[in-house]
Amino acid sequence: MSPSVGLLTIGDELLNGSLTDTNSSIIAQRLAEIGLAVQEVRTLPDTISSIANGIREMTKSFDILILTGGLGSTIDDLTVAAVTKAFSRQSRLNESALQLIEEFCRKRGRPMHPRDRKSAEFPEGTSPLRNPCGTAPGLYLSTDAVELFALPGVPTEMLAILEESILPFLQQRFSLSRLEPERIVTLIGIAEPQVEEELTPLELPPDVTIAFGVSYPFVQLKLRAQGDGAATRLDQAVKTVSTYFNEKVVAFDKQTIAERTGELLRLSGKTLALAESCTGGLIAKLLTDAPGASDFLERGAITYANSAKADWLGVKQQILDQEGAVSSACAEAMAVGVRIAAGSDLGLSVTGVAGPDGGTDEKPVGTVYIGLSDGCKTTVLRHQFPGNRQQVRMRTACTALAMIQRHLGGAQT
Amino acid sequence: MSPSVGLLTIGDELLNGSLTDTNSSIIAQRLAEIGLAVQEVRTLPDTISSIANGIREMTKSFDILILTGGLGSTIDDLTVAAVTKAFSRQSRLNESALQLIEEFCRKRGRPMHPRDRKSAEFPEGTSPLRNPCGTAPGLYLSTDAVELFALPGVPTEMLAILEESILPFLQQRFSLSRLEPERIVTLIGIAEPQVEEELTPLELPPDVTIAFGVSYPFVQLKLRAQGDGAATRLDQAVKTVSTYFNEKVVAFDKQTIAERTGELLRLSGKTLALAESCTGGLIAKLLTDAPGASDFLERGAITYANSAKADWLGVKQQILDQEGAVSSACAEAMAVGVRIAAGSDLGLSVTGVAGPDGGTDEKPVGTVYIGLSDGCKTTVLRHQFPGNRQQVRMRTACTALAMIQRHLGGAQT
Repeated sequence: MSPSVGLLTIGDELLNGSLTDTNSSIIAQRLAEIGLAVQEVRTLPDTISSIANGIREMTKSFDILILTGGLGSTIDDLTVAAVTKAFSRQSRLNESALQLIEEFCRKRGRPMHPRDRKSAEFPEGTSPLRNPCGTAPGLYLSTDAVELFALPGVPTEMLAILEESILPFLQQRFSLSRLEPERIVTLIGIAEPQVEEELTPLELPPDVTIAFGVSYPFVQLKLRAQGDGAATRLDQAVKTVSTYFNEKVVAFDKQTIAERTGELLRLSGKTLALAESCTGGLIAKLLTDAPGASDFLERGAITYANSAKADWLGVKQQILDQEGAVSSACAEAMAVGVRIAAGSDLGLSVTGVAGPDGGTDEKPVGTVYIGLSDGCKTTVLRHQFPGNRQQVRMRTACTALAMIQRHLGGAQT
Repeated sequence: MSPSVGLLTIGDELLNGSLTDTNSSIIAQRLAEIGLAVQEVRTLPDTISSIANGIREMTKSFDILILTGGLGSTIDDLTVAAVTKAFSRQSRLNESALQLIEEFCRKRGRPMHPRDRKSAEFPEGTSPLRNPCGTAPGLYLSTDAVELFALPGVPTEMLAILEESILPFLQQRFSLSRLEPERIVTLIGIAEPQVEEELTPLELPPDVTIAFGVSYPFVQLKLRAQGDGAATRLDQAVKTVSTYFNEKVVAFDKQTIAERTGELLRLSGKTLALAESCTGGLIAKLLTDAPGASDFLERGAITYANSAKADWLGVKQQILDQEGAVSSACAEAMAVGVRIAAGSDLGLSVTGVAGPDGGTDEKPVGTVYIGLSDGCKTTVLRHQFPGNRQQVRMRTACTALAMIQRHLGGAQT
C-alpha cells in the first residue's frame, strides 16, 4: 500500500488572508506524479507550540509529513524550533548545513551574514537539504514513525528542494515508479455536463480515466492511465476524444490556446493582423505572452474611437453611421482592413459590447462579432456571451483564437 | 477574549493538486475585518469518516468552525452526512431548506430537479442559510461547544452566504464591531527592504501599523488602525506616506494602477493613444479591463513589424535602420506618431526586449524604452528590468502607466 502523506503549511500570512497557499496544490501535483496522494493539509500560525502540536498529531497519522514555511533566519521563522520541540531533541550548529549556506553565498557573490548561521541550527539527527534558490536549507528527519521534510515557504525555493531532493528520495525509499503524466485536452464552446454526456458512448482504450477541470472559458479533459502501454493507450484516447470534439479542441497538455494558435500559425507559415475593439488588446496580449509571436503577428490595432477604425482600417463612415461599430458589417470591414493594412495573410477583428454598460435590446451586453478575413473570403460570426465584463472579454478572445485554429485546420494532435 | 476560529475545507480536488484553495484566504480576510482571527485551516478529502473526524477534533479547539465544500446534490457532496455523523444526529427533510431551494429555482425559472431535494436533507436541529447564487443552502448548527457553519465550495456561493448570513450573525452574537478597513498604498519602482528602511523615520499618527505585501511589480503598504478616530489617523498616515513616496505611489486601496491611471486621465480630461511593441497589447488590456476606457483611450497600435511602425506611426525608415526598433529615437517617434495619428492629448510608446531571446550586449533582455509625448515635449526613459518575459512585460506596462500618472500630477489622494 502506498504511504500516506500529510502537508503542514506554516505562516500567519496564510491565516489572516494576506496570502493564498499555492504551495500545497503544487506539492500535491508533484507527489501525484509519483503515485503519492496527500490525505490532509493543515495550516497553522507562527507559534512554536502550535507547530509542534501539529507535527506531533500529524506524525501519528501519516508516513510522510512535508512542512512548508517558517524556515529561514528571521524572528518569525520557527519551524526548526518546533521540530526540535516536537521530537524532544537538542538543536545545534549543523556543519553540512553551514557548508551549504556558505556555498550559496559564494555563488551569489555575497558575504555570509551573521544571522545566516541561524539557518544552520538543526535538531540533532536531522540532515540539511540543499536549497539551490535561497539561503535556508531544507530539513530532513527520519524516525520509525515518519519521514519528515521541512521546506521554505517561498514557492521557488520550496519547489527546487522538492524536485532536487525529496521526489527522487521518496521514489527510491518507497519503490515508486513515475506515473505516465496525465494528458490534457482543452475544449471551448461546450459546457461540462454536455461534455460528460457526449463522452459516455465514446469507446476509449481500457483503464483510461477522465477527470474534468473547468477553467473559464474552457473545459479540460484530464486523461490518466497506468501500467503497461499507458502512453499508447493515452495517445489513442487523446486521438479519439479530439477527433470527436474536433473544432472545439483548442489546446493539448500544458499548452495554452494562444500557444497552440501560435504553433498552428507558425506551421502554416501564415501571418496575422488583429483589429480589436471590445477586447482592447487582450488577444494580442495573449498571443505575445509567449516568445516568438513576431514570427506570425504583424501588427494589431485597438480601435476604440471610430476615427481609428476609419483611418487605420479603412472602415467606411457609412458603415459606422448606418450599422454602428458593433455590427457584422463593421467586423467584416475591420478584418479586411487590418489584413490589407498589414499585408498579412489573415486579418482577425472583434467588435462587441463587453459591458457592464452599452447594451441595447437589439445588441445586449455580451453581443460580439468576430471576423476573419483571408483574402479569399471573410467570415463573421455573431456570438452572445454570458457573464461579466471580464468573462465576456476572455470568452471573446479565446473564441477568436479558436476561429483562427479552425481556419488553419485545427484539431489534429 | 475574541472567539477562536477554525476553517475546514473539503474536497479531493484540493488534495490532488487540481484546485488551489482560495476560499480560506477570502474567509480569513472577511473575518479579520470584523476582528476574528483564523487559527487553523484543515483540508480533508471527500469521505464521511475523515470529515466527521475533522469536525469532532476541530470542535474541541475552536469556538467557531466554518466548513466549505462538499455541499450540494451530487454523489461526492458528503458534508451534511459528515455533520450528521459527527454530532450523532438524524437527518431529515428540512422544510425551510426546501423552500429556499424552491425559491431559487423559481427565480432562475427552472423546474426543481428531484435530486435538488437532497440539498434539503439536514441534520435535526440545524438551520439552512439562504444561498443567493446557487441551489444548495448553507447549514448552521449551534451547540454548547461550537457555532458551526457549512458552505458550498463554489467561491461566489460561499462568499454570498458568508456576507449575507454569517458575518452579520457573528458580529451580533459575539458583539464584534467592524474594524476600520485597512488602507492600501501601492508603490512601484522600489524594493520592500528599501521601503521598510525609508518608512522608519517617518512620523505616523499613533497606533497605525503597517504591513507589507509584495505583488510583482508592486510593494503594497497596508495601514491599519483601531479605536477612536481610526479613520482620521489612517487618512493622515496615508497622506504622510504618499507625500513621502510621491511619484512611486500608483494606486490606493483596492484600485489597480490601471484604474487609477484611468481616473486621473478622466479627471484631467486628457485623451491617450498607445503604441506598444514588446508589451504587445498588455497596456491597452490593463486600461480596458475596467469599463469606461473609451472616455480617454482613443486607440492603440501593436507594432510588431517595422512596417506597422512606419505606416501607422510614421516612424522614419532611417531611425529603424540606424538606431533600430529598440531605441530611444524609435520610442520618441512612436509616441509622437501615435499621438498625431489619434489626435489625442497624450501618446505613450513602449519598445524593448522582453526576452528570453533577442538581447544583445548593448541592449540585453529587459532593456525597455518608454516614451510619452504631450504635444509640447516628448520624454523617453530607458529602463533595465530584471526577471523573465512575463515579469519584464508586466513591469514595463506598469512603469508606463506610472509615467502617465506622473505626467498628470500623480500622487494626491
